[in-house]
Amino acid sequence: MAKLKWGMIGGGEGSQIGPAHRLGAGLDGLFEFTAGALDHRPEAGRDYGQRLGLSPDRSYGDWREMLEGEKGRDDRVDLVTVATPNATHFEITKAFLENGFHVLCEKPMTMTVEEGEDIVRLSEKTGRICAVNYGYTGYSLVRHMKAMVARGDLGRVRLVVAEFAHGHHADAADMDNPRVRWRYDPAQAGVSAQFADCGIHALHMASFVIGQNAERLSADTVSCIDSRTLEDDAMVNLRFDGGTVGRLWTSSIAIGRQHGLTLQVFGEKGGLRWAQEQPNQLYWMPLGERLQIIERGEANLSPEADRSTRVTIGHAEGMPLAFANIYSDLAEAIRAAKDGRDMDPAADLYPRAEDGLRSMAAVFAVAESGKRNGEWVDARPPLFR
Amino acid sequence: MAKLKWGMIGGGEGSQIGPAHRLGAGLDGLFEFTAGALDHRPEAGRDYGQRLGLSPDRSYGDWREMLEGEKGRDDRVDLVTVATPNATHFEITKAFLENGFHVLCEKPMTMTVEEGEDIVRLSEKTGRICAVNYGYTGYSLVRHMKAMVARGDLGRVRLVVAEFAHGHHADAADMDNPRVRWRYDPAQAGVSAQFADCGIHALHMASFVIGQNAERLSADTVSCIDSRTLEDDAMVNLRFDGGTVGRLWTSSIAIGRQHGLTLQVFGEKGGLRWAQEQPNQLYWMPLGERLQIIERGEANLSPEADRSTRVTIGHAEGMPLAFANIYSDLAEAIRAAKDGRDMDPAADLYPRAEDGLRSMAAVFAVAESGKRNGEWVDARPPLFR
Amino acid sequence: MAKLKWGMIGGGEGSQIGPAHRLGAGLDGLFEFTAGALDHRPEAGRDYGQRLGLSPDRSYGDWREMLEGEKGRDDRVDLVTVATPNATHFEITKAFLENGFHVLCEKPMTMTVEEGEDIVRLSEKTGRICAVNYGYTGYSLVRHMKAMVARGDLGRVRLVVAEFAHGHHADAADMDNPRVRWRYDPAQAGVSAQFADCGIHALHMASFVIGQNAERLSADTVSCIDSRTLEDDAMVNLRFDGGTVGRLWTSSIAIGRQHGLTLQVFGEKGGLRWAQEQPNQLYWMPLGERLQIIERGEANLSPEADRSTRVTIGHAEGMPLAFANIYSDLAEAIRAAKDGRDMDPAADLYPRAEDGLRSMAAVFAVAESGKRNGEWVDARPPLFR
Amino acid sequence: MAKLKWGMIGGGEGSQIGPAHRLGAGLDGLFEFTAGALDHRPEAGRDYGQRLGLSPDRSYGDWREMLEGEKGRDDRVDLVTVATPNATHFEITKAFLENGFHVLCEKPMTMTVEEGEDIVRLSEKTGRICAVNYGYTGYSLVRHMKAMVARGDLGRVRLVVAEFAHGHHADAADMDNPRVRWRYDPAQAGVSAQFADCGIHALHMASFVIGQNAERLSADTVSCIDSRTLEDDAMVNLRFDGGTVGRLWTSSIAIGRQHGLTLQVFGEKGGLRWAQEQPNQLYWMPLGERLQIIERGEANLSPEADRSTRVTIGHAEGMPLAFANIYSDLAEAIRAAKDGRDMDPAADLYPRAEDGLRSMAAVFAVAESGKRNGEWVDARPPLFR
Repeated sequence: MAKLKWGMIGGGEGSQIGPAHRLGAGLDGLFEFTAGALDHRPEAGRDYGQRLGLSPDRSYGDWREMLEGEKGRDDRVDLVTVATPNATHFEITKAFLENGFHVLCEKPMTMTVEEGEDIVRLSEKTGRICAVNYGYTGYSLVRHMKAMVARGDLGRVRLVVAEFAHGHHADAADMDNPRVRWRYDPAQAGVSAQFADCGIHALHMASFVIGQNAERLSADTVSCIDSRTLEDDAMVNLRFDGGTVGRLWTSSIAIGRQHGLTLQVFGEKGGLRWAQEQPNQLYWMPLGERLQIIERGEANLSPEADRSTRVTIGHAEGMPLAFANIYSDLAEAIRAAKDGRDMDPAADLYPRAEDGLRSMAAVFAVAESGKRNGEWVDARPPLFR
Repeated sequence: MAKLKWGMIGGGEGSQIGPAHRLGAGLDGLFEFTAGALDHRPEAGRDYGQRLGLSPDRSYGDWREMLEGEKGRDDRVDLVTVATPNATHFEITKAFLENGFHVLCEKPMTMTVEEGEDIVRLSEKTGRICAVNYGYTGYSLVRHMKAMVARGDLGRVRLVVAEFAHGHHADAADMDNPRVRWRYDPAQAGVSAQFADCGIHALHMASFVIGQNAERLSADTVSCIDSRTLEDDAMVNLRFDGGTVGRLWTSSIAIGRQHGLTLQVFGEKGGLRWAQEQPNQLYWMPLGERLQIIERGEANLSPEADRSTRVTIGHAEGMPLAFANIYSDLAEAIRAAKDGRDMDPAADLYPRAEDGLRSMAAVFAVAESGKRNGEWVDARPPLFR
Repeated sequence: MAKLKWGMIGGGEGSQIGPAHRLGAGLDGLFEFTAGALDHRPEAGRDYGQRLGLSPDRSYGDWREMLEGEKGRDDRVDLVTVATPNATHFEITKAFLENGFHVLCEKPMTMTVEEGEDIVRLSEKTGRICAVNYGYTGYSLVRHMKAMVARGDLGRVRLVVAEFAHGHHADAADMDNPRVRWRYDPAQAGVSAQFADCGIHALHMASFVIGQNAERLSADTVSCIDSRTLEDDAMVNLRFDGGTVGRLWTSSIAIGRQHGLTLQVFGEKGGLRWAQEQPNQLYWMPLGERLQIIERGEANLSPEADRSTRVTIGHAEGMPLAFANIYSDLAEAIRAAKDGRDMDPAADLYPRAEDGLRSMAAVFAVAESGKRNGEWVDARPPLFR
Repeated sequence: MAKLKWGMIGGGEGSQIGPAHRLGAGLDGLFEFTAGALDHRPEAGRDYGQRLGLSPDRSYGDWREMLEGEKGRDDRVDLVTVATPNATHFEITKAFLENGFHVLCEKPMTMTVEEGEDIVRLSEKTGRICAVNYGYTGYSLVRHMKAMVARGDLGRVRLVVAEFAHGHHADAADMDNPRVRWRYDPAQAGVSAQFADCGIHALHMASFVIGQNAERLSADTVSCIDSRTLEDDAMVNLRFDGGTVGRLWTSSIAIGRQHGLTLQVFGEKGGLRWAQEQPNQLYWMPLGERLQIIERGEANLSPEADRSTRVTIGHAEGMPLAFANIYSDLAEAIRAAKDGRDMDPAADLYPRAEDGLRSMAAVFAVAESGKRNGEWVDARPPLFR
């Protein structure tokens, strides 16, 4: 089976996100790195691309050059990953979709809800995939949680509790560090800092697992470090469209927590608990029975879990493999489209433009509710009301 | 050193609370069980008391008889524990305080804020101790957290996150069980179920550790099981009077959690994490250093921790010993009063009438805010505004 | 029900063991501290006893005086605890047994196997209880493990793995500290240090849980700190008389381990894992199923577990309550003997002279095998061969 | 930087080991899969290779054909991985070394000690790399342990305790399953089952971390399931050539343990604890201080740890990345050889022929000692005595 062709915009030399995507896309041998515009400095980008093995004619100086170069080729790239600065995601993603490319966009997909709605409509109109990189839902056991909820193991889900609370911005002195300061500055970061950065991962995971979208929310947002304008800690209460109650805590000042992404799901017939730091175990208590530990890789899990795991039980799998599962889903989706067949439903799990849009709407809703002392506000984008 | 004399009201045969108090009071040999009115059925109470070793003349038929019998004696009991049904706590506690007895009252101390204020004033006026049984703050490492905050190890405390979330009332079918049903019925339980039952323990512990009281709060209360009028799950956001932000989650439908009382404290200079189910370890990360594990019983902890521990490091201590520490504090307080000396400050940690009153005010505030969609309300009793 | 009368020899002011026994004996209100010879200095002992509430005529100057004083009384003590220096255990225990007292002896029961055999014979001949204080088997979930094995949940037990490895004697400089040095000095400690001190607890627990006794063993004993004559680390391989293989590691130089008493039991039909530091959870995997967590206090455990637990599920119980269970067993045994009835079989779990004797035989066997480069030796006392 | 060319022998369609190696070799983009002889059925192998993207002329029918085809090419593969059935490792590895290829051989490298010595000599003589795949030492924190020991953080290492005990062969009925049965049959598996399969991983890791080799050992080997000839459980005591004492337990009947590879290292100045199932945390207690948790990816670890990690702190990394580190080491070694420069010492950590040989000697020593009731035997290959 020939590899799919993959291109990347952004992720230049020294970035963290570039190697992560190349690792994720290449890990299963499904994609071949074929084209790129890796740096905002054209020469540096061209040079780096070639050093990474791109042919000179497909190592571009900027995204427009890449779009021009690729769109006319018969062997054009099958998928373009957009990993540029946040403010440029919309423009680039739009241009590639309009020219018939499938796109995987880093989060946030856009800077406004309106732009997000444009992308959703465009993806629908063109029939092109627009995926968004909420990579944590790639974990095998996160997918198994979704499958358990879907097949009714928990009965009706009453409550979902999500956390993404870490302590990596807890040092007040870090506000002198430009790599931290911009995150809390509305001029650069927009209406939200910690919720927009981390909270939406937790919200997306909660939605993904319970199969429901946030309808309304109430937020308590605070800046624990005085010199910050935007929030470094937020508690968000939610109501999902299937009736589930949500609670979501996100923080960047929670010293002692390294990563802090966790999910708890409580239904009529059982409860689940999972943490990103120990992703190979899932705690499950059926109502009236004992707490038991589901192991990644054990026999007779769901097709969704089985498809997204690579090593035998007891051997830890980590974040890069979760991330690679998004690419694996996309490879299957693209191949199925090429072959004119339905895709494997167990792969139909990648986050998409709708998720990017809903996240953006939630970010604005949290900011608004936070300003209004926790007043309940609509969490949905206008398009989906 | 002669034992102090101790009496008990309530806690009759077959109750859970009676043996727990007798265990806690007797564990260190500080109190001798001397008098009691153990049952609402006079004969049963007299008989049971004698079987427990009380002399016939001090095994009373009801609390009024006990008050009459004890108040005239030279060797009257030094402390009376009130462990009767909730609605009677106020009347009995009041009567014994007025007659010069020290009292340890089960929680809730009263059914209304006004009654709570009466008790606080009465305790002050009579100079008698009125303690309230928030026994979880008796754990050695909880006391050490308080000491660490007080001596400045954390710097200013920015955020406290408390949970008391379990799954023991998650079965909808249990609403046919009278032992569960009354808890969610306003006619019997008052304005709140889960917050009043468990949430206030978490709130008291947070206040105890950070040395601040709740000033304002906003609550999202829900009944996840339809047949319930009162809440079985609540998220409460708080502002404490020293500027700390609080987040408190309590639930009785969180299947998979056995006890679920945990505390996280995040300051400028470090973060703490503790859980009641593993009470002998305290996780502490000083800013910029590694997470480390403080062990109960290790050398060079605080006087507060040292005083409230009994076995060597590595040997687990549990809830009964925490509970006994409340009695140990009271023994020291009573002896110091008798001897006309200051009490050991490391023992001056028992919860008192003010705590009972503040808890009651918080219960009403949560209920009110819950009804008003999370509007921020004053969490303080009028007496302390 | 009147309390039983309890006397203690040793455990004077400042000792650790004295308060532990008084806590354990008094915790459930089953024993009343009635007589004592608490110190090797007669006046200090008499004085301390009276301060602890003993009447002057039963606060004795030494154990012989106590034996004389008590043996003639109608209201003589029902149980005598011997907590004196190791070398005196035999003589005192023997004297009290011969005079018809029940005895609880601290471990080691004797200094030689021959003495141990004397005590076993004497206990049998007199019909008096001679218990030995292996207190760790008092934990509710340890007793539940025994019950699970006995009722066949594990099928035939293939392998038991026990550890008691801590790091509290890891500092070479501590050999200047007399409180540590004597432990590694054959003149004071006998033939074994770490195995005799800790290893036998692990061995006793293994035997207790699987219901088998050690038949043969092979030991690798080492002194990791050069200035030590006796071992500070040992690995012992065992064969039990029911065919189970045993592995036992004990160490005092394992820095980072606080207590380190753990037990794993592997049978044909399932495996168990328990650790003293988290004694309220028991990990159980039935063959072919998931790992599940048994909680102390959960419904439908064994009678043995139920009888030895005091607080509701989710509230931690610790070592002092485990210890108190030995006293609770003894109270039931003594009462049953007085009443001429069979004792509750769920209480018939206290360690007895046979266990003390077998431990002593194992200590000598370990020392001998260690000297002979791990040669397999008989682990049984001659009496039981 | 052009990719190195990589070839594989074995790992045909449906095997587990094939995808694992392709994942490991390809993960960082350092190797390109260029040639292969993937199946013992020539046509199946050729076909599968081409489906995996090999060119027809380098998708060979068997290893001899591949050796012939590659050895004459200017662009011959830089590294050959041998992942064929165990009994063929020696012959194939030998042939490729003799023809000047670098080899990565699956374990066991050979079936006898003599063959192992041949390979060691051959590798030395030809100057070609012969690596052996003990992939667990690729974990970032395992390498950090080695660095900590080497730089003296623990002082002299007194004791190392290694375990590789799982429960995946605990079902007696599995002996009807040919995939299990052969492992315990001397005709197919040789002199040892569980120690040869898993124990040597633990032994290699212990040696790797402490920087010492096993000199003598004593083993207690047992077959817990009667129908087995070879051992399914073994305890091995060791003496290393730097004076450290070792204890190693391996089992395949330990129901409830999923993977069970753990390492504890105890030195004069501190103790370490690590487990493969939670590989991103390392427990470290410096003598006299608190237990602390070292996180993979934290700042200021060793060069060895830094080089072998890919994602930021708090994001789990797992086994495939550890495995890829062996390939990453080899890429650096091969490039350095090509460039005529010294290799990065932080990459000079891959297991090599010497390790494969020492493991084989240990397997025979364990089998011999096991047969002789635990007699101490030399654990070294004659070549290194």
